[in-house]
Amino acid sequence: MKKESNGKLRIIPLGGLEKIGMNITAFEYEDSIVVVDCGLAFPEDDMLGIDLVIPDITYLRDHIEKVKGFVITHGHEDHIGALSYVLKEMNLPLYATKLTMGIIEKKLSEHNLLRSTRRKVVRHGQSINLGQFRIEFIKTNHSIQDASALAIYSPAGTVIHTGDFKVDYTPVFGDAIDLQRFGEIGKKGVLALMSDSTNAERPGFTQSERTVGHTFDHLFAEHRDTRIIIATFASNVDRVQQIINSAYKYDRKVVVEGRSMVNIISTAQELGYLNIPEKTLIEIDQLKNYPPEKTVLITTGSQGESMAALSRMAADIHKKVTIMPNDTVIFSSNPIPGNEKSVSRVINELSEKGANVIFQDAHVSGHACQEELKLIYSLVKPKYAIPIHGEYRHRKANASLAQTLGIPKENIFMLQSGDVLELDWQEAKVVDKVHTGEVLVDGLGVGDVGNIVLRDRQHLAEDGILIVVMTLERGTGRLLAGPDIVSRGFVYVRESEGLMEDARNVLSDAVDKCLSRQRNVDWSRIKLVVRDTMNDFIWKRTKRRPMILPIIMDV
Amino acid sequence: MKKESNGKLRIIPLGGLEKIGMNITAFEYEDSIVVVDCGLAFPEDDMLGIDLVIPDITYLRDHIEKVKGFVITHGHEDHIGALSYVLKEMNLPLYATKLTMGIIEKKLSEHNLLRSTRRKVVRHGQSINLGQFRIEFIKTNHSIQDASALAIYSPAGTVIHTGDFKVDYTPVFGDAIDLQRFGEIGKKGVLALMSDSTNAERPGFTQSERTVGHTFDHLFAEHRDTRIIIATFASNVDRVQQIINSAYKYDRKVVVEGRSMVNIISTAQELGYLNIPEKTLIEIDQLKNYPPEKTVLITTGSQGESMAALSRMAADIHKKVTIMPNDTVIFSSNPIPGNEKSVSRVINELSEKGANVIFQDAHVSGHACQEELKLIYSLVKPKYAIPIHGEYRHRKANASLAQTLGIPKENIFMLQSGDVLELDWQEAKVVDKVHTGEVLVDGLGVGDVGNIVLRDRQHLAEDGILIVVMTLERGTGRLLAGPDIVSRGFVYVRESEGLMEDARNVLSDAVDKCLSRQRNVDWSRIKLVVRDTMNDFIWKRTKRRPMILPIIMDV
Repeated sequence: MKKESNGKLRIIPLGGLEKIGMNITAFEYEDSIVVVDCGLAFPEDDMLGIDLVIPDITYLRDHIEKVKGFVITHGHEDHIGALSYVLKEMNLPLYATKLTMGIIEKKLSEHNLLRSTRRKVVRHGQSINLGQFRIEFIKTNHSIQDASALAIYSPAGTVIHTGDFKVDYTPVFGDAIDLQRFGEIGKKGVLALMSDSTNAERPGFTQSERTVGHTFDHLFAEHRDTRIIIATFASNVDRVQQIINSAYKYDRKVVVEGRSMVNIISTAQELGYLNIPEKTLIEIDQLKNYPPEKTVLITTGSQGESMAALSRMAADIHKKVTIMPNDTVIFSSNPIPGNEKSVSRVINELSEKGANVIFQDAHVSGHACQEELKLIYSLVKPKYAIPIHGEYRHRKANASLAQTLGIPKENIFMLQSGDVLELDWQEAKVVDKVHTGEVLVDGLGVGDVGNIVLRDRQHLAEDGILIVVMTLERGTGRLLAGPDIVSRGFVYVRESEGLMEDARNVLSDAVDKCLSRQRNVDWSRIKLVVRDTMNDFIWKRTKRRPMILPIIMDV
Repeated sequence: MKKESNGKLRIIPLGGLEKIGMNITAFEYEDSIVVVDCGLAFPEDDMLGIDLVIPDITYLRDHIEKVKGFVITHGHEDHIGALSYVLKEMNLPLYATKLTMGIIEKKLSEHNLLRSTRRKVVRHGQSINLGQFRIEFIKTNHSIQDASALAIYSPAGTVIHTGDFKVDYTPVFGDAIDLQRFGEIGKKGVLALMSDSTNAERPGFTQSERTVGHTFDHLFAEHRDTRIIIATFASNVDRVQQIINSAYKYDRKVVVEGRSMVNIISTAQELGYLNIPEKTLIEIDQLKNYPPEKTVLITTGSQGESMAALSRMAADIHKKVTIMPNDTVIFSSNPIPGNEKSVSRVINELSEKGANVIFQDAHVSGHACQEELKLIYSLVKPKYAIPIHGEYRHRKANASLAQTLGIPKENIFMLQSGDVLELDWQEAKVVDKVHTGEVLVDGLGVGDVGNIVLRDRQHLAEDGILIVVMTLERGTGRLLAGPDIVSRGFVYVRESEGLMEDARNVLSDAVDKCLSRQRNVDWSRIKLVVRDTMNDFIWKRTKRRPMILPIIMDV
């Protein structure tokens, strides 16, 4: 089974192993690099004001002459969301299946990158040659259509990368995962399996997407007399298909609401991934022409995102839809960790308006549970296992599964971003560490907000700012104006006049003392005195630590 | 069964109905007001820099001559946490059971209020007379010992207030909930039942606390060869008792770690609520004298709170405990909504250090599920139902239960804080709305941070601040120095010199133009120009909206 190779294969995750999101992995063999996925991550709670986070691709920049292109597993943001930023810097070709490419193209055109980017749509079962690599796209199932696993053939051996996946024997659209092909490639010998760990802590099998369709049918039958509003993930086209099926069956018109939902639905419809019976879809403005119990709204906002359509309806700030008593609102989703409170707030607001909120049984996961992972390991029988996609705890659970299936512990690699795993049939080991990191995107700024700015924002958020300004006479250093104190985000000044007056007095004394002692006016010395004096005074009086910012002018 | 009364009873929730926490309810009959509980709430995510939130008690202040005292149901922060702040303003007596009072006293002494506050410890079954009211303390079960329901007898009728409760037939310490007494009072006729809604969405019964003891025994048997670290809620004394029981059985020494845990354990031990076998408890410094597999640590941090003991161990910044590979770490808790991500972070950090993290089956809730609520309704058979303690969705679920048990919809009251519910045996209705609200506590400041300051903090957090300073000549308005721009939390200035230079130029032009046109220097006009110019320029270049703060001095 072992193969001969001159060189070794290098697998270098450039992101995605420390937390959910920002998936990007380089595969390198001699003069060739292929990059799998290029995703974004959403900001952590302490990344104040940040819109999104993309990977630091210094490694690709430094080896740009080797890089053959991006191979994309599926169309979720954590796998494609950084492409528009990265492609501005390096013009490289993209390879993806049809729906995935359709979703990417929408983004590229928003960034004016569509014309300049070479793109090739690949079918499942098809292979592409990229330098020393051949990459085969293998059909899988996931919570978005057209998801792929990749067989990455290199002279050093074959790696299978599952992408995000589940095993759905009865998918809503298209075929089940191509288990035969996993088996066939496995039989020929697979060096390493990189598999999705998201649900590796969960025993059993993930239910088929089709079961949600049955739930919808039951719910539609039960709630014949009310309007139905269903919130789900914009990209789950199969979910939308099943809602449309139930709506058609129960003779309801369907409205799709929420920008990202409308975008993806239109892409999916154009490309033939959605089958909508004629006259089923109506515009939101037509809602008023139908009795409520003859309508369904499919909407974004299943995660309680404050600006999404459902949240705006719940908060009564949606321009076109007002929640009515007896509306049936179904959350066809689970809260992603971190969103529980926002989701709960929306549920409370909807309940207060008299809506009947249903948030159970109308969702299944898009990720493989333990039995599915075992199945893939058993079909592929890799020499090495590399758990990917998931937090450490999830990847660790995946590693434990691999071990129970007979893969020796030393052949299982819990990598970190930046690790260079060099492998062939003889051995595998981490031989190097390359530079990786997070680049913060804030408005138009990519990377101009770093740790210093973030720390300042956290400081400002915590206790606000006190600005101390004064004007000195150039040369003599005589105090001409100030020191004045201006504060923001510290206390409500009108009700804290005593405190501010005392602060000014303490400050004046300190500045006078400092100036009278100095011959040559040393601004940094004055600033230091201002900071120390104010910090001490404010802490003693309030137990707070606002940012103290001295500003000196001279005339 | 109906009783005669001249007046009516008024129930006025002053907090606690809009979200979890800040429980405080006034019961008023003619010249008497009795207040049940006085809790705090933890700040919402958008309350930047706020430490805690207490209720606005304007209503009590305005009727202070009527207020007879505070009756406390149990010793959790959301029921006692505001006492230390409120008692500073109004010296009123406290009534509570022994452990509850012990916990309160610890807090009062920290605030120097112990000597000035009258306190009466009440036994279960005992009543106290407060003006026109008689209040009986009824034994219940909860996740803290000595929890009480209250029977509030007034000339207008009896109200039963459950506090937070569950039905535990086999509690770890003391007696089961006094169901007989609920039945007995119910038989005599109860006007209204105010019952805990926290778990009203959950079918079935909450498991007995004792089941967790069995789980601990199993876990201790399974992990004989490793150190065991268990994180749980500081105030769950029964949980701690059961850990100590298992530790003793398996011949391990116990260390208690985390300030709040140590505090409550020592109070509980002093008052006889904990039974610790001799030589079982050791100091943390003695850990090194025992083999790891002969020790257990009981610690705070089960919610992933960043400064709690377990979080510090996980982050490797705990002074005395280092996580070792093979440590068994048990989360004896469920994440409170909003804490999921922090808990997950701690689990990941522990896993990365090689610890074996167990976070299932080692916890039961302290709140009644649907079958328990039905039981209490059926024992009490109130005329009116008032769901309390829980978010709107939970209280709504409680209301639905009440309805299925035969209480007419019009007799079920979904109150809001401030509603004045007036009731007697003839009728009940909301007759008035009194002022309520949240008072924010930040450091030593109580109420000095309001909406304006919070909005500033949110603004500062989002995009930082740009300060524009200039000095003008008094009288002439000639520009003597500046305009200078200083920024914090906006961009990393050293890498954005071009942007800042352009900003200064745009600004100088605008200020020059403004000054040259003006005869009398109007500072507010200059400030307006500075704000508008900078807002426009910065938005165009960066799509950000930092706070723009113009400061003018004159000499």
